[in-house]
Amino acid sequence: MSLWGGRFQGTSDADAWKLNASIDIDQRLAKQDVTGSIVWSQQLHKIGILNNSEYQDIHDGLIQILNEFEQLTFQIHPSDEDIHSAVERRLYEIIGKTAGKLHTGRSRNDQVSTDFRLWLLEAIPTLIHAIRQFQTQLVERAEQDIDVVMPSYTHLQRAQPVLLSHWWLSFFWPLERDIQRLTFTFKECGIMPLGSGAAAGTSFAVDRHELADQLGFIGISQNSMDAVSDRDFAAQFLFDSALCGIHLSKLAEQVVLFSTTEFGFFALDDAFATGSSLMPQKKNPDVFELTRGKAGNLLGLLTGLMSTLKGLPSTYDKDLQEDKQAVFQAYDILMAVLPVLSKAIPSLRIFPEKLRAAIDPSVFATDLADLLVKAGIPFREAHALVGKAVKISLESGRGIHQLTSAEWEKLIPGLEIDFSKVFSPEVSIATRCVVGGTAPQVVVEQISTARRCLQTH
Amino acid sequence: MSLWGGRFQGTSDADAWKLNASIDIDQRLAKQDVTGSIVWSQQLHKIGILNNSEYQDIHDGLIQILNEFEQLTFQIHPSDEDIHSAVERRLYEIIGKTAGKLHTGRSRNDQVSTDFRLWLLEAIPTLIHAIRQFQTQLVERAEQDIDVVMPSYTHLQRAQPVLLSHWWLSFFWPLERDIQRLTFTFKECGIMPLGSGAAAGTSFAVDRHELADQLGFIGISQNSMDAVSDRDFAAQFLFDSALCGIHLSKLAEQVVLFSTTEFGFFALDDAFATGSSLMPQKKNPDVFELTRGKAGNLLGLLTGLMSTLKGLPSTYDKDLQEDKQAVFQAYDILMAVLPVLSKAIPSLRIFPEKLRAAIDPSVFATDLADLLVKAGIPFREAHALVGKAVKISLESGRGIHQLTSAEWEKLIPGLEIDFSKVFSPEVSIATRCVVGGTAPQVVVEQISTARRCLQTH
Amino acid sequence: MSLWGGRFQGTSDADAWKLNASIDIDQRLAKQDVTGSIVWSQQLHKIGILNNSEYQDIHDGLIQILNEFEQLTFQIHPSDEDIHSAVERRLYEIIGKTAGKLHTGRSRNDQVSTDFRLWLLEAIPTLIHAIRQFQTQLVERAEQDIDVVMPSYTHLQRAQPVLLSHWWLSFFWPLERDIQRLTFTFKECGIMPLGSGAAAGTSFAVDRHELADQLGFIGISQNSMDAVSDRDFAAQFLFDSALCGIHLSKLAEQVVLFSTTEFGFFALDDAFATGSSLMPQKKNPDVFELTRGKAGNLLGLLTGLMSTLKGLPSTYDKDLQEDKQAVFQAYDILMAVLPVLSKAIPSLRIFPEKLRAAIDPSVFATDLADLLVKAGIPFREAHALVGKAVKISLESGRGIHQLTSAEWEKLIPGLEIDFSKVFSPEVSIATRCVVGGTAPQVVVEQISTARRCLQTH
Amino acid sequence: MSLWGGRFQGTSDADAWKLNASIDIDQRLAKQDVTGSIVWSQQLHKIGILNNSEYQDIHDGLIQILNEFEQLTFQIHPSDEDIHSAVERRLYEIIGKTAGKLHTGRSRNDQVSTDFRLWLLEAIPTLIHAIRQFQTQLVERAEQDIDVVMPSYTHLQRAQPVLLSHWWLSFFWPLERDIQRLTFTFKECGIMPLGSGAAAGTSFAVDRHELADQLGFIGISQNSMDAVSDRDFAAQFLFDSALCGIHLSKLAEQVVLFSTTEFGFFALDDAFATGSSLMPQKKNPDVFELTRGKAGNLLGLLTGLMSTLKGLPSTYDKDLQEDKQAVFQAYDILMAVLPVLSKAIPSLRIFPEKLRAAIDPSVFATDLADLLVKAGIPFREAHALVGKAVKISLESGRGIHQLTSAEWEKLIPGLEIDFSKVFSPEVSIATRCVVGGTAPQVVVEQISTARRCLQTH
Repeated sequence: MSLWGGRFQGTSDADAWKLNASIDIDQRLAKQDVTGSIVWSQQLHKIGILNNSEYQDIHDGLIQILNEFEQLTFQIHPSDEDIHSAVERRLYEIIGKTAGKLHTGRSRNDQVSTDFRLWLLEAIPTLIHAIRQFQTQLVERAEQDIDVVMPSYTHLQRAQPVLLSHWWLSFFWPLERDIQRLTFTFKECGIMPLGSGAAAGTSFAVDRHELADQLGFIGISQNSMDAVSDRDFAAQFLFDSALCGIHLSKLAEQVVLFSTTEFGFFALDDAFATGSSLMPQKKNPDVFELTRGKAGNLLGLLTGLMSTLKGLPSTYDKDLQEDKQAVFQAYDILMAVLPVLSKAIPSLRIFPEKLRAAIDPSVFATDLADLLVKAGIPFREAHALVGKAVKISLESGRGIHQLTSAEWEKLIPGLEIDFSKVFSPEVSIATRCVVGGTAPQVVVEQISTARRCLQTH
Repeated sequence: MSLWGGRFQGTSDADAWKLNASIDIDQRLAKQDVTGSIVWSQQLHKIGILNNSEYQDIHDGLIQILNEFEQLTFQIHPSDEDIHSAVERRLYEIIGKTAGKLHTGRSRNDQVSTDFRLWLLEAIPTLIHAIRQFQTQLVERAEQDIDVVMPSYTHLQRAQPVLLSHWWLSFFWPLERDIQRLTFTFKECGIMPLGSGAAAGTSFAVDRHELADQLGFIGISQNSMDAVSDRDFAAQFLFDSALCGIHLSKLAEQVVLFSTTEFGFFALDDAFATGSSLMPQKKNPDVFELTRGKAGNLLGLLTGLMSTLKGLPSTYDKDLQEDKQAVFQAYDILMAVLPVLSKAIPSLRIFPEKLRAAIDPSVFATDLADLLVKAGIPFREAHALVGKAVKISLESGRGIHQLTSAEWEKLIPGLEIDFSKVFSPEVSIATRCVVGGTAPQVVVEQISTARRCLQTH
Repeated sequence: MSLWGGRFQGTSDADAWKLNASIDIDQRLAKQDVTGSIVWSQQLHKIGILNNSEYQDIHDGLIQILNEFEQLTFQIHPSDEDIHSAVERRLYEIIGKTAGKLHTGRSRNDQVSTDFRLWLLEAIPTLIHAIRQFQTQLVERAEQDIDVVMPSYTHLQRAQPVLLSHWWLSFFWPLERDIQRLTFTFKECGIMPLGSGAAAGTSFAVDRHELADQLGFIGISQNSMDAVSDRDFAAQFLFDSALCGIHLSKLAEQVVLFSTTEFGFFALDDAFATGSSLMPQKKNPDVFELTRGKAGNLLGLLTGLMSTLKGLPSTYDKDLQEDKQAVFQAYDILMAVLPVLSKAIPSLRIFPEKLRAAIDPSVFATDLADLLVKAGIPFREAHALVGKAVKISLESGRGIHQLTSAEWEKLIPGLEIDFSKVFSPEVSIATRCVVGGTAPQVVVEQISTARRCLQTH
Repeated sequence: MSLWGGRFQGTSDADAWKLNASIDIDQRLAKQDVTGSIVWSQQLHKIGILNNSEYQDIHDGLIQILNEFEQLTFQIHPSDEDIHSAVERRLYEIIGKTAGKLHTGRSRNDQVSTDFRLWLLEAIPTLIHAIRQFQTQLVERAEQDIDVVMPSYTHLQRAQPVLLSHWWLSFFWPLERDIQRLTFTFKECGIMPLGSGAAAGTSFAVDRHELADQLGFIGISQNSMDAVSDRDFAAQFLFDSALCGIHLSKLAEQVVLFSTTEFGFFALDDAFATGSSLMPQKKNPDVFELTRGKAGNLLGLLTGLMSTLKGLPSTYDKDLQEDKQAVFQAYDILMAVLPVLSKAIPSLRIFPEKLRAAIDPSVFATDLADLLVKAGIPFREAHALVGKAVKISLESGRGIHQLTSAEWEKLIPGLEIDFSKVFSPEVSIATRCVVGGTAPQVVVEQISTARRCLQTH
């Protein structure tokens, strides 16, 4: 059944109908659509468009439809153009022509945006919960691995010693920002467009604030022409998702690297690794590679929708129909990836001795320079002197810790410093004790701060 | 059944398995996968890995599987990781352990790229055919509307008179370039990676040239490590699709504009228009808006895959698994849009008198300037003089054709030109008779050239 | 002067140096870099790394450098790798080797992110101010044009009558959301990374909270490894910019349309229009087309940076250097476009009579249906009946307002409704009086709400 | 000087002018613009618009302007809107009002596209040359490193032994495809739009084929309305550039990895490495990280332009002005990166013994399975058996080569195979001798094929 057609001659072309129809995608909004209609019909009743028995019929019919959706017994017809049409068609079947009163004062333009926002008002908390679950695993790993030392890397070259806990937590905070972004987007989704009609507002005196309260919205839109075309909330969700995907891709890249034979820091649990159809020895980190690869997809979904929005004229244009598939796909990607990571990360086996062994003496070069600074040498000179010491060690095939006192004396005449205590990961790590640093006591504080974040949602 | 697992302890985590599995997507490669296996088994037979009866069993089993796919009786199992696993699993069910010989010397890394390229070798000609169908409609409209005049627009402001035929053909040539691009991409798809193994090549002496011939490839890859990771062909296809989508979006934008009440040049046939659930008078160009909007999606698919490819290390990484969904979606979008446009464009009703009426006198300003040039006035001065005439006409609320001889004489003292013949669309159009111009005789030639293009595929 | 080199043999390759150097781009951070160094040197003084006279020298030297930048007398040297190196090099020239103490405990990794965030902490309020200026013009147009009626459009087809004021305000609210987004991003920029060192934190006991206060940050980062690689704030700014660009593109698209001869609703002021080098009559809306086109660029900048971020390993990688050019370009685009729009929009001449004339009788179809609803007919039936009336009017070449009582009686036997009052824009508009609707009194309220928003920044 | 203005009142708003002007960008087309004008004036002479002395004046004036550009003495004025205006303004200064005849029959719409294509007809061969230079270095490395063995990696896990030469060549072929793509794009650029006027074609009887020949074009456009808006060639160039950037990012990612201490396969020459301002020991691969990061930028440039093109109406819209900056930026990025890589790659120091040492015994697992296959065991069973052997070796902390005959006998009762010869990289590599494989003799053939490619441009 089509919701229009009075002025049309003949029927739609079958291929055109198929191109136009969105039921394959938007049936995912079924619950939101019916719920919105239930609340809408209450308003119609209140303002006298529906009498008591009409309202009761519509209400009962809609409840039945809701049940049919929940029990998966609702039958989509080939002629259902979209979820709104399907629901109204079914309501006709159940209660007859009173069904025709439901759409009074409403347009699919405000209705679909209302449904879509309602869907996100459920989806975002679910997604945040999945992120929280994963963050919890990161914090638990940080607690568990507090005694493990490793080199940090910049440019993928060994830099300075850190705690493995600090490294784990470095993936916690980007996700914390993702949650703040999603929370911001949640508020944006919480603005109700219902009552905007097709573009000019509705001519029936519904109480939009009451509607918003009943549906769980935070506020209402201020301009009907903007309201029916605003897809900022969808673009924001896609941006949040893409950035979250990028954060996960960073962790994935690292796990892939640290699980190589060459790094040898991590071993994947067999339950989260994959083999090769050809090479019997292979144990591959597919799950992490997919996590990384899907960040590209998420970016594509964002780019796609924003490009679709670009250059559109005011109010509703059918181009906007492309919004939902992108949002659903982004949500599904993250909801497939996050639970797997939440199990794969705790199951990772780590090799503390290999992580420690990777802290070769050159990694203490900054500590050496800092020691010189504390003896009064300007940092830039200290840096150059230690640089020269590194060069001597490289040229002579020794570690920098093996330079003799004579060699140091030649480099820095007259300076008497005992370098022997520098070459200890624990000593080096302990010096980085400002907030946000890697010293054990501040990492412990960091864990506490992270734990507090976990309790905010 | 998994194609690997010997070295693994326990089973895969269910969620990880689901994330990792690609059968939902790559089952679309079923035919290509089985065909590739049939040809591969011939090589295994030839080099003695399969004896006659083994070969016969495998061959018959694969033919049966092919039939099952064609008759939609093939059952995907939840444990089928991908299409390759599903086929091998089924082959085991049919012929027993000889099935285990099929994968000899082959990896899924070279197999999936082979399947995917084979799929595109079928898909691209189908897509080109759909474009050709649509181009044919454009040429037919050009032939049909050869007598209709209209203003051309630049910056959406009326510019100079043209034939409507010329305008129709302006959408033909971008599609011609799309076909050239797709043909180029077809050649790129025609390079066979099979025989590259996992990364290093195969150690079984198959004849790759013979394999390529039998499968319909044009040539073979030159480096196994490149071959298993090369997705240039997929990126190219997505680029071609996105650019084709942009071309269609230009036409869509124009049809949307020309079908407004304000322009009033076109009326959509009811079979290709859509109504409003709220406003009974509405007749909307949804089909064209969707065409325009989907250009954004196509761009997103391109961006997504290219972003996924960026920064990957050598050979096969699981990130590459994301390639197929993007290509399938792009193909499906164009194959949904093109056939509808091929019917919607011929069904458009045009209003020649409105198109002609839009050629207001100011549109002949260039013709006036050209006339002055032919009388010896430098173009830049002629341009300025006509500009002033336009200004006078605007200020006095008349058309430029209504300027008096005295006014012209004042502007250009001493010049005696008869402007009266300038204000004719037909005269103006006839002057643009260089190749590619809008004069009727060159448009007729253009139609012939276009017709010849249509015969090249 | 290079800040490193002790361990290196020979000099850098000239082309490699050029590729690596970022001074062309990051010199824009000069003020922030020097300011950061002034505050940093205070901490070094406080913890005893600098004695009084060293601190005074560094302080005075930095102040002099700041002046040189402000007076544009600072000379960039070809050997300056980046802004940090340039400042330190100049400080050496001014105060000698004490300059070498400035970089103590700091890395360019935390320094550049600090500079960049400081830059955005200035840039974002400037950008918000430019948006506010433009919003003010929109509100003033809304106030000025409160008596002008026009048809709203959906799918670019005439839909329902609205006030032009309502239309103007429909561009206000998306910008309001942009400001909310930018405000959110401002907070994200307000987290100070300084004190994170290269990756592990600093080993000098600076007070990061005090540093943050002195530099105008809101808070400090919690994890040094995250802090040196976090570019979420830059991606957010690019997203905000791209979405703002899309909002402006919608207005631009509309102005381009409404300034066509066919619509004829608007005329650009000559000061904001452009001519043709060939066609003397042309008056083109280049400014609005560029506004629309640059939305594409802004999206490209977002996509580019996010793709660069994807798949990077932990902490600082040089890829991150690509962040600044994108942000500067996005900022420059919006700061070029917004001030022009702020002048071009008030200068637009509007044609109220043409806007009113575009409200043809069919635009009242919803009002007719609503009237039937109020007489008790279910909306869906009412919609179909009015649809049939539209069809009759189309077939008979009359307006729907010209249908006779007999014809209505035939359509809806027994119904006695006076349709004569329906066909008034003012009546129709007045009915849409829920919040967010187009009725004059609610639009006046909407203006008040908008005015209040303008005062929040 | 403006090329228009006759019909305009007052002057342009200064900010609007600045937004509109493109001279900052398009002055890069100076040479092409003047050359195009010289050839255009010949046609104007031939058809009698210019007499001999006028033609001579224009010709000499343009030659002088060309010299001024070449000697960098040409002064851009603030009032020059674009390069076309600047040239015509200067011509006026040199030869007076005859200059006003040059623009006869031409529009900036066809002129700018002509200039832009001419620029690419020079730029593409230059870029191809830079790629060829780099490919040459790859081939030379392949020749030089022919005796070096290494493990190939899939999923970044050790897979099968290969020659380092084979690995180097795996980066040659993607670039070969890039050159094919650029060659295809070159042909697309070779279609001349000149003579298309503003949109409708020119009314002066120039010989477009002659113009094309004189300017070095391959053919001429067939439809003037398409010709002035076609930016496919620019999008193609950006796609080619982005894909080339992705190919380089793959190599960059690998060099970054192989230069880590953990892999230790490569050492960067100091001339192509970079230090840290803080950590004296650091030697960073910035050049390769920037190569990788800039692939993101290139993708952004592509996305940006395509998004700008999406949804534009027919013929020239000012949005198209955004095309040039993107193309110039993409060209500049590749022309900055490629020459550096061409020097950095030959300067890389490799460590053959470390590469060989990375071929641990498990890497021969496929060879073991293949051996079983050759003894008649179906591959899938062989795979499972070797998988079990891997598991035994892992559990017992030995290499797979250390399994005893008794253990093998238990796994595969009755089979008598001598596994001792399997564990040799040379033996394994020699078996992959199909075309495209890693066996030395086919790699030598591959080098020859590559050398032949190098000679085709």
